[in-house]
Amino acid sequence: MALMTGDQYRESIRKMHMTSRVYIGGEKISDPLDHPVVIPAQNTAAMTYELAHDPEYEALMTAYSPYIDDKVNRFTHIYQNIDDMVNKVKMARMLGQKTATCFQRCTTLDTANALFIVTYRMDKALGTEYHQRFLAFLKEMQENDYHLGVAMTDAKGDRSLRPTQQDDPDMWLHIVEEKSDGVVIRGAKTSQTGSANAHYTFVAPTAGLRKGEEDYAVAAAVPSNAEGLYHIYGRNPGDDRKHEPDLMDMGNPRFSSQEILLVFDDVFVPWEKVFLCREVEWAGMIPFLFGANHRQTYGGCKAGVSDVLIGATKLIAEYTGIDKLPHIRDKITDMVVLTETIYSCGLATALEGEKLETGSYFVNQLLGNVCKLNVAELPFKIARLAVDVAGGILGDAPGGKDLKSPEIGKFVDKYLKGVAGVPTENRMRLIYLVQSLLFGFNSVGYVVESLHGAGPPQAQKSSLYRLTDWEHKKNLAKDIAGIKD
Amino acid sequence: MALMTGDQYRESIRKMHMTSRVYIGGEKISDPLDHPVVIPAQNTAAMTYELAHDPEYEALMTAYSPYIDDKVNRFTHIYQNIDDMVNKVKMARMLGQKTATCFQRCTTLDTANALFIVTYRMDKALGTEYHQRFLAFLKEMQENDYHLGVAMTDAKGDRSLRPTQQDDPDMWLHIVEEKSDGVVIRGAKTSQTGSANAHYTFVAPTAGLRKGEEDYAVAAAVPSNAEGLYHIYGRNPGDDRKHEPDLMDMGNPRFSSQEILLVFDDVFVPWEKVFLCREVEWAGMIPFLFGANHRQTYGGCKAGVSDVLIGATKLIAEYTGIDKLPHIRDKITDMVVLTETIYSCGLATALEGEKLETGSYFVNQLLGNVCKLNVAELPFKIARLAVDVAGGILGDAPGGKDLKSPEIGKFVDKYLKGVAGVPTENRMRLIYLVQSLLFGFNSVGYVVESLHGAGPPQAQKSSLYRLTDWEHKKNLAKDIAGIKD
Amino acid sequence: MALMTGDQYRESIRKMHMTSRVYIGGEKISDPLDHPVVIPAQNTAAMTYELAHDPEYEALMTAYSPYIDDKVNRFTHIYQNIDDMVNKVKMARMLGQKTATCFQRCTTLDTANALFIVTYRMDKALGTEYHQRFLAFLKEMQENDYHLGVAMTDAKGDRSLRPTQQDDPDMWLHIVEEKSDGVVIRGAKTSQTGSANAHYTFVAPTAGLRKGEEDYAVAAAVPSNAEGLYHIYGRNPGDDRKHEPDLMDMGNPRFSSQEILLVFDDVFVPWEKVFLCREVEWAGMIPFLFGANHRQTYGGCKAGVSDVLIGATKLIAEYTGIDKLPHIRDKITDMVVLTETIYSCGLATALEGEKLETGSYFVNQLLGNVCKLNVAELPFKIARLAVDVAGGILGDAPGGKDLKSPEIGKFVDKYLKGVAGVPTENRMRLIYLVQSLLFGFNSVGYVVESLHGAGPPQAQKSSLYRLTDWEHKKNLAKDIAGIKD
Amino acid sequence: MALMTGDQYRESIRKMHMTSRVYIGGEKISDPLDHPVVIPAQNTAAMTYELAHDPEYEALMTAYSPYIDDKVNRFTHIYQNIDDMVNKVKMARMLGQKTATCFQRCTTLDTANALFIVTYRMDKALGTEYHQRFLAFLKEMQENDYHLGVAMTDAKGDRSLRPTQQDDPDMWLHIVEEKSDGVVIRGAKTSQTGSANAHYTFVAPTAGLRKGEEDYAVAAAVPSNAEGLYHIYGRNPGDDRKHEPDLMDMGNPRFSSQEILLVFDDVFVPWEKVFLCREVEWAGMIPFLFGANHRQTYGGCKAGVSDVLIGATKLIAEYTGIDKLPHIRDKITDMVVLTETIYSCGLATALEGEKLETGSYFVNQLLGNVCKLNVAELPFKIARLAVDVAGGILGDAPGGKDLKSPEIGKFVDKYLKGVAGVPTENRMRLIYLVQSLLFGFNSVGYVVESLHGAGPPQAQKSSLYRLTDWEHKKNLAKDIAGIKD
Repeated sequence: MALMTGDQYRESIRKMHMTSRVYIGGEKISDPLDHPVVIPAQNTAAMTYELAHDPEYEALMTAYSPYIDDKVNRFTHIYQNIDDMVNKVKMARMLGQKTATCFQRCTTLDTANALFIVTYRMDKALGTEYHQRFLAFLKEMQENDYHLGVAMTDAKGDRSLRPTQQDDPDMWLHIVEEKSDGVVIRGAKTSQTGSANAHYTFVAPTAGLRKGEEDYAVAAAVPSNAEGLYHIYGRNPGDDRKHEPDLMDMGNPRFSSQEILLVFDDVFVPWEKVFLCREVEWAGMIPFLFGANHRQTYGGCKAGVSDVLIGATKLIAEYTGIDKLPHIRDKITDMVVLTETIYSCGLATALEGEKLETGSYFVNQLLGNVCKLNVAELPFKIARLAVDVAGGILGDAPGGKDLKSPEIGKFVDKYLKGVAGVPTENRMRLIYLVQSLLFGFNSVGYVVESLHGAGPPQAQKSSLYRLTDWEHKKNLAKDIAGIKD
Repeated sequence: MALMTGDQYRESIRKMHMTSRVYIGGEKISDPLDHPVVIPAQNTAAMTYELAHDPEYEALMTAYSPYIDDKVNRFTHIYQNIDDMVNKVKMARMLGQKTATCFQRCTTLDTANALFIVTYRMDKALGTEYHQRFLAFLKEMQENDYHLGVAMTDAKGDRSLRPTQQDDPDMWLHIVEEKSDGVVIRGAKTSQTGSANAHYTFVAPTAGLRKGEEDYAVAAAVPSNAEGLYHIYGRNPGDDRKHEPDLMDMGNPRFSSQEILLVFDDVFVPWEKVFLCREVEWAGMIPFLFGANHRQTYGGCKAGVSDVLIGATKLIAEYTGIDKLPHIRDKITDMVVLTETIYSCGLATALEGEKLETGSYFVNQLLGNVCKLNVAELPFKIARLAVDVAGGILGDAPGGKDLKSPEIGKFVDKYLKGVAGVPTENRMRLIYLVQSLLFGFNSVGYVVESLHGAGPPQAQKSSLYRLTDWEHKKNLAKDIAGIKD
Repeated sequence: MALMTGDQYRESIRKMHMTSRVYIGGEKISDPLDHPVVIPAQNTAAMTYELAHDPEYEALMTAYSPYIDDKVNRFTHIYQNIDDMVNKVKMARMLGQKTATCFQRCTTLDTANALFIVTYRMDKALGTEYHQRFLAFLKEMQENDYHLGVAMTDAKGDRSLRPTQQDDPDMWLHIVEEKSDGVVIRGAKTSQTGSANAHYTFVAPTAGLRKGEEDYAVAAAVPSNAEGLYHIYGRNPGDDRKHEPDLMDMGNPRFSSQEILLVFDDVFVPWEKVFLCREVEWAGMIPFLFGANHRQTYGGCKAGVSDVLIGATKLIAEYTGIDKLPHIRDKITDMVVLTETIYSCGLATALEGEKLETGSYFVNQLLGNVCKLNVAELPFKIARLAVDVAGGILGDAPGGKDLKSPEIGKFVDKYLKGVAGVPTENRMRLIYLVQSLLFGFNSVGYVVESLHGAGPPQAQKSSLYRLTDWEHKKNLAKDIAGIKD
Repeated sequence: MALMTGDQYRESIRKMHMTSRVYIGGEKISDPLDHPVVIPAQNTAAMTYELAHDPEYEALMTAYSPYIDDKVNRFTHIYQNIDDMVNKVKMARMLGQKTATCFQRCTTLDTANALFIVTYRMDKALGTEYHQRFLAFLKEMQENDYHLGVAMTDAKGDRSLRPTQQDDPDMWLHIVEEKSDGVVIRGAKTSQTGSANAHYTFVAPTAGLRKGEEDYAVAAAVPSNAEGLYHIYGRNPGDDRKHEPDLMDMGNPRFSSQEILLVFDDVFVPWEKVFLCREVEWAGMIPFLFGANHRQTYGGCKAGVSDVLIGATKLIAEYTGIDKLPHIRDKITDMVVLTETIYSCGLATALEGEKLETGSYFVNQLLGNVCKLNVAELPFKIARLAVDVAGGILGDAPGGKDLKSPEIGKFVDKYLKGVAGVPTENRMRLIYLVQSLLFGFNSVGYVVESLHGAGPPQAQKSSLYRLTDWEHKKNLAKDIAGIKD
């Protein structure tokens, strides 16, 4: 069977010996799995393996793959029906609830399903063999239960210039050499959520390309320990707190995401892992399809994180005796409305999906973009409501060391107490959980990524404008208004 | 077969001889079907019959009913599966697109499905025979392809007082006499959208009731021409324009809704049409279930009306040459986002529905309320965007008589012209369509009803608060924060 | 003294014999002052005269003019200090409160102050005599207590084309002939609020102009009864109700605005009334300065109309016994917040104004645009809150004829009753007042004009972008971030 | 002259020897002025002294005090006219611009002006001598150029219980003993922004009090080094970064706020520093007046911080070449609109203030609350726009150590580069500035405090409801609707 346990997953990553590849704080890390900044991110990724063995979640976390005729982790699955897409959203929400952060592995699923389609169509149109290559890798991925990142967002330099117009030709990742057995690529991909926890990374163009930009048209799978690959950890807000996980000040002491600047310093990729090479007219379809797919996912995962935030906010209200106030009830209910709205958009994106000529299914692209535009806005409203209910103490509560201080711990314990029967520490833990979600290291997932993940809102609007059937709407209006052309 | 054509429907209403029952402008109307205020409302209701015979829409508009073993209009259908609930939303959107107003008949479906459940449960719990009565009426309704209104919103007088505390005991509809063959009811139901176009009206309590309020606990089916029933037309904004339908000034010259103050001046209802009688503890379940169901419907119908508004706005932008401006494109795309958001909520409410012990299916109540809360807010945003794009001329364009005036028609034609090739009249027709939707007689459906239909937002919030599983969310937060109770 | 009474004002307009110039419903109107569509608009304009004689409002409504050394109506006043600009906003709010609609005369003040500056600067720069001409007209205006409209918004045809690129050269008003004693102009100005109630209309360009567009650069004062001038009334939503002012259905039975398509069919203007002629480089400054000035005014007048809407909404809540509910109190308080926000912006625009080299004062242009952007958004939120509180009956209450009907009046009276002690009619009157403000003829002023008056939001954003001192803000950020260029 | 320099201020605080009073991370701090967490907070407070000597800002930063017949720092000034209140807002904006954080001293001004009035009125009504005591302290404060915190927010325990109903009677600060020479007080005040940088702290009730709660009614001035007083630093998001100020990762390396849990463990206050003692009926007036005053201040200071954020966002857009995109221009302009809106509210609150019977002036309380409600909402919108423009890199950029790393610094420098000519470091510094403002230690001031400072929004709504003249608005509506009572 193709399902790893959490420990097997951790071991598989450790075996990759990425020692010489991972940098934190400017320094090479000997074993990332033992580093306090990495541990919670690893824990989170591992949950995608662990829960696949949990009887309660097994049905949601796994699927039958016809490609290897076996049960696979849903994160490596190609959609076979509408339910598969519905279940992806449900799985994402559940994992968001269990980790309160980004679990980093949906990129595997969201990219694989896009590449499945694009390579199929390229082979049909061009007589290439990309789809066969991709299927081979898909089987490897499913059989080995891979976690894959997706390296899409280029450094981009001056955004008003095309890739070939940049002072530095490496600002968009590109092919620097073509060999008999493969290609050499150079460039960097930013905000790489999963890469250091992943076995492989999908490399793909970040946007549509034009004639003359052939070198920039490349899609491939690259192992995380490839020669020339550098994982440079970014700094998340509040990340220093990870160094003292025993304190409550982390808020979420077990789980976090991680984001990385992924540098490809002349990385060689053999042909069998290359899925697009210089076909500029097909380059844009990968991020376009990935985008719709990934934008839907957020309707699940961010709703799951919201659930945790709502629960924390409700508890804080109860712990301070304000939960019965009408305006507090209204505000917490509003948080539910906003959360279920993004979830509904995710579900509808699945429900309105369709079977393609590839044999696989795909989400409704228009609704996927609608989903993401809501995700890009509503968590900010949810966040504001949480701050409102949680109170000003959210930004300035004393911390774990204060509570444990022999000298002033008694004051903290006494004066941060809320209603009778609830230990002060519990209230403080929830305050730090909310702080972590809105202003700490997990705010990157909940707030920044909600806006920018799978592209910023303007990218979604642009997609939506293209996907909308304006003629249909115009004809409806003409019919009602009695206009005959 | 149980499907009437549009003409058969009209004839069936005409035959009911409601002459003595319908008042417009304070005066008795001889034949409502010939009255200019009623005609567009009739046209709209008739569309629910006509499209059931249209091959393009037949599958959406009809369903197989096991209760009469025949094809029925979907508006009379009891949900047999998830698809039935999905299709209701799709049908509602399509009819919103075809009429750009409220088609008035979803009350039939939304109430029947609630009564089906409540009467089933009452019989199980109380040993009553309400479900059998209801099934008998359901068959009659399906076989005769009825259009039914739902009379739920009581006059209510002083809202801070319970029904029995009112100065006037009739402010909530109640049983004034119980006879051997039935009950006599008195009161009034406001904002009755469908009643004058309906064969029957479902009467039901507007809210939960308490001990001592037994007289107010009554549900029944009453024919629209019952003795003692008065249909008093309300005044919609801009309704006077209906008197000159040949002018473009109506905006939507064929379709409208209608709202009525429905007075029950001692109306007798035979027992076989009574589905609840004095069981106060069951009274609230009817509006509660109807509410969730009806709140979902808005995710379809209002999205359909929005589609027309979007089409009209896009055309106006094209007709004035501004459609390529980035901010205009953004605004029209935003209209799409908002529209698809409410639609997604409607679909998700269906998808997350479930099979009940009754054998029938029911929508996800929590999501139904979420859907409606979005409907209660987003159309106002859509409306503002439409006003922004359409321009100030929306509120003050010269009208049809001006365009046709021998003296100044030339000026109107010359100066209201937009881009080359588009007749001025077309631009004017669209301006009046938008005016009608946002400020005219159809604004009641699109704006006011979006907020208040199936109860105002606070009613949805109150339902949501009850339906949310707070313990689950709190436990999620405790688990993440490391709190052990 | 230069102050007319309301009756003197009416008489002065009647004397202008505009019989052959005013069209309503495509027909020439014999005496506009007797026409039911015009009467409430006249009543409103007359209030700007009447209140100047009211001891309570005299100080606000009048000012001392050094130009004629006499007390003048503030609507004809050139700002002499900061207080003058503050008082304009306060006067506007008070008149909004007294009329609940657009009183149409602020165009006089807002344009005069812009022309005062532009003509002054032109004379300085070009050696022209426009300022002297303007001062002469200003004295005439002040001495005769004129009401002036401002004809700025051109028909514009295809908005993607410049004036000279249009198929029809008349789509922007332009000079068609230059004579020894003046110029002949042709074109049309849309959405002319005040023109038919005004003695004169200021004609001015609607936007900046370029070389080659000299014919389109013209500013002038034209009497409302000029030969070749046509006032074509536009259709406001719900305007038909004006024909039965004795019914409560008008909502606001005494006051309304009016909007007109003003056609200049070769109108001659003598040189002494011409204030700009072909100087394209100065054309844009008139709408730019007028814009900032007029955008500020809305901070007052729309706040005043909001006050009436808030009062009506609060009363409706009280009349139905819901005013003590926390969510209702919150919503009505929110209406106050939004209203005072736009008012605060209006006041700040005055407070941050400055003395110019012209000797006159001018508002802070940046804040004037900020003010208008809030006006373009917040009334929509206020409107939604009003609909929420007022209830669904807002769109479908029976009307005056129903209440008075011998047959069914008793039902309407009985069932629309709210709390004890308040006549049903009072509740209905308020419902119709709110309907009128949000969906009836006064919605044009409160909703459409709030968005489009003095240009649509994008025009304000464009102005703001130009007016903002970006370098200052960038330097602040660099200083904080420790960046040394 | 009564004006200290920045260094004199620092020295004056150092002299207070608060060694035994200040705790950070649960440990006693030897000299707070040398602690990295305190230094930037001290720097900020010192700016209120330094700029008073800067010729450019002297007029704004100082005022003439009749009480000591000398020039004083404006932060110690009692309003003598409208301009004083306008200038407070302008001073606050300027200081926000110069520090991009909370400068902590406005509590001095805002409380002093409230106490001036309340003590005056108490003496008039009760024949007490509080005003004389307060005047004596006011002179001391002005002559010594004090910085005062305001200790208002009690710990409060179970918010659903009154002070006397709490399990622990100390949850609201109260008098535990009355001596011949003064009172002894116990309790804690949370979220104390200025206390550890202040010479004194004003203690005042947090809300209105009732009969039976006399012990809780106390207002006084307490020196920051009083026996029994403990300053326990709270943890701000991202505060650990302060330990490496040489890195760019702090974002704002020089300035921060600080918040403290201030414990009064039986602190003695001599009578001459007591301004309210057991007069429960007057207790609520202090926070009520302070509230309006302080709520106005936010219209200035948060606008100033926004200016820095706008500048940083604009620069980031320029540095990546996206600043010309229409949607980026729109978003940055929207940031300006929101910023100027809160500023306008602050100014209007001053302009509409009035002279009181006390001889001093006071802000318009209603508008002060409106101002704060906007402050409690708009920065969240500004924040979202900044995140949108700044890009996803905001949450995960590599930091200073990465840039300086001998091994991978070259990659960071190469791939985080934007447009030509701008060093990568500059872009990174701005990213960290924005991160600091929205998610780092300064987010407490910009986001959390904007919502909760001077009380949460519901407190403002409650005040507003009381301050609104509902009768006036209702009468306006009745007059328009033709209702005669």
